[in-house]
Amino acid sequence: MPRLFAAAVVIAGLATALPAAAQFQKPEDAIKYRQSAFTVMANHLGRVGAMAQGRVPFDAKVAADNTAIVVAMSTLPFTAFGANTDMGMPNRAKPEIWRESAKFKAAADKMAEEVKKLDAAARAGNLDAVKAAMGAVGGSCKACHDDFRAERYSN
Amino acid sequence: MPRLFAAAVVIAGLATALPAAAQFQKPEDAIKYRQSAFTVMANHLGRVGAMAQGRVPFDAKVAADNTAIVVAMSTLPFTAFGANTDMGMPNRAKPEIWRESAKFKAAADKMAEEVKKLDAAARAGNLDAVKAAMGAVGGSCKACHDDFRAERYSN
Repeated sequence: MPRLFAAAVVIAGLATALPAAAQFQKPEDAIKYRQSAFTVMANHLGRVGAMAQGRVPFDAKVAADNTAIVVAMSTLPFTAFGANTDMGMPNRAKPEIWRESAKFKAAADKMAEEVKKLDAAARAGNLDAVKAAMGAVGGSCKACHDDFRAERYSN
Repeated sequence: MPRLFAAAVVIAGLATALPAAAQFQKPEDAIKYRQSAFTVMANHLGRVGAMAQGRVPFDAKVAADNTAIVVAMSTLPFTAFGANTDMGMPNRAKPEIWRESAKFKAAADKMAEEVKKLDAAARAGNLDAVKAAMGAVGGSCKACHDDFRAERYSN
């Protein structure tokens, strides 16, 4: 299926220099990897979100330590949506990921871009900027989830 | 249980400046997080391992891109072995993690140290040094797994 393969190559190259092709021996390896990268990213994003929402006192150093990890994670999952990785273990990837690959790539790029802005705001120690950037990051997460993440897990 | 709590504080502080205490609302959050960080780390370590073993041609840039991620991941899981995170979802953590916390910390520190050497070797573009460092990294993984990781998952 050349179209899917082309999409996989595009996705693999969209946000990292690492050659993703053939990096995963089995579809479940790719699914587990991308879910893991999202888990780590979400955890550290959540710690900054707690500061943005005032649930935890703002600490610029801690915020920046966390956003650095978010930035490092932000591009990784998208190397693992290659062809035929829609099943193999329970996951929430919608078929639209492969059917609308340009839109999916744009959504991934948007998130990575907003995350960099969040990191810059944290490094600048500017809570107002962190709050604004966090809103944009959250919006980019939600937009992609709405279009490309299913409500329920399936194989 | 003050002794366990003290161990958790030590573990939380061993390899990162992030305050791990209260970063996880439920034990399963901590378990899922540390398993995810290990998954991402193992994946990128495996890509360098494939080069060290000659299964994939050595590319210093790709190797260094991967070791950078390994270094970033190497300290994260150990922030998530706080008190009472031995159960909540299937995991392979042995009781020794909390019973022999100093030894566990030393094993974690050893791995993080060897991983930095691997990263330096990759950055230097020296395949022989990468091979040697990969052997030491693998040894540090195995030593910790032998002592602190169970064969089977349990709750």
